[in-house]
Amino acid sequence: MRYQLFYWPSIQGRGEFVRLALEDAGAPYDDVARKSGGMDRMRAMLTGRDKRPPFAPPFLKAGRLVIAQTAEILFYLGPRLKLCPRTEVDRLWLHQLQLTVTDFVKEIHDTHHPLGGEFYYEDAKPEAARFTENFLGARAPKYLGYFENVLKKSGGPYVLGKKFSYVDLSLFQCIEGLRYAFPKAMKRIEREVPRVVEVRDCVAERKRIVKYLASPRRLPFNEHGIFRHYPELDE
Amino acid sequence: MRYQLFYWPSIQGRGEFVRLALEDAGAPYDDVARKSGGMDRMRAMLTGRDKRPPFAPPFLKAGRLVIAQTAEILFYLGPRLKLCPRTEVDRLWLHQLQLTVTDFVKEIHDTHHPLGGEFYYEDAKPEAARFTENFLGARAPKYLGYFENVLKKSGGPYVLGKKFSYVDLSLFQCIEGLRYAFPKAMKRIEREVPRVVEVRDCVAERKRIVKYLASPRRLPFNEHGIFRHYPELDE
Repeated sequence: MRYQLFYWPSIQGRGEFVRLALEDAGAPYDDVARKSGGMDRMRAMLTGRDKRPPFAPPFLKAGRLVIAQTAEILFYLGPRLKLCPRTEVDRLWLHQLQLTVTDFVKEIHDTHHPLGGEFYYEDAKPEAARFTENFLGARAPKYLGYFENVLKKSGGPYVLGKKFSYVDLSLFQCIEGLRYAFPKAMKRIEREVPRVVEVRDCVAERKRIVKYLASPRRLPFNEHGIFRHYPELDE
Repeated sequence: MRYQLFYWPSIQGRGEFVRLALEDAGAPYDDVARKSGGMDRMRAMLTGRDKRPPFAPPFLKAGRLVIAQTAEILFYLGPRLKLCPRTEVDRLWLHQLQLTVTDFVKEIHDTHHPLGGEFYYEDAKPEAARFTENFLGARAPKYLGYFENVLKKSGGPYVLGKKFSYVDLSLFQCIEGLRYAFPKAMKRIEREVPRVVEVRDCVAERKRIVKYLASPRRLPFNEHGIFRHYPELDE
């Protein structure tokens, strides 16, 4: 099965959580919108000739099946990529954790867009500053503290204990992105969540991930994605 | 199987999407936190003796299994309550739609709390006004227009065509809540989404739903939940 991933071609964004899973598994896939004519193909699927159109990227084409929503894509791919056990109990638990990552990512996005994606950052800077102060003071420590607790209970080093999963890849991406966006605040926050940081370190050493991160397939972080570095928002 | 639903006892909130499914199916369940000692039980599970603690309510106990995240609870309950077909393709499609409802509900919540749930509404009123103007002008029509398109493609009256599902119940709840919160804006918006309104009307006539809505189990909308009526935010 050669998967087709549809996502914006110039940002890591939400698509990156799927890319990391495909890359770690060594799964064959096309990053469709980054190929010639790909944006037109993506737009055509969004404007909806299909009977079951996705609401927004990312979405994945697996044979004739089209699946949207990052967490659902990973739920689907998990057992197929051997990044999730096949039992219903474990699949539901990982999906639940991934949906909490989804909530976290939305709040990370809202640090620069608290009033909605339709506004320019420049048009809501004071609002972004207030949102971010609360985010760095309360929300980020709460989410990361939750995952720290999950890792403590699992016995580590991963959220399932000794078994690696796609949620560990997503925690890696959260830490990487947050370090890019808020390097100062993360120095403080990371002190309280050593197990989450250890997951990040383990992922960074995985062979296929090392190769991926050094390849042109890994887009750099930038100020169009989820994780944006605006120094005035950092502590 | 007698289900145990854990959710805040004084609001409809996100728990209501689960309540509607349980009620429509006539499934036996306890609304735990609304019973004596229930809040203590809910808190105990959140502070996490369990090996796999939920991040936040709502969560559902089904035998020994604990499932959190509204959309995941419905994904789990769907086939068991006969509110979702058993095929993987249909289950994934409904879940995808429900996750889009989840995104919509988050934005509905943010109309009164754009800077984060930690702020009082009174402390971010101008921000709420700016957020809501964009929400009512662009976001709500976009989400509801998406579901209108899904209903058009399904042939109606439901998102799966002739087969009723839990997503239809959630669309009912969105329309009911939005009518409560933004009665003026909804008059305008509803004109563009007649199929979504028809789903709402069909659900409002379902026998168990009629009984439920007239019972004390259905909490009234109020200014502590997701859908809040602040007249100054309406058009």
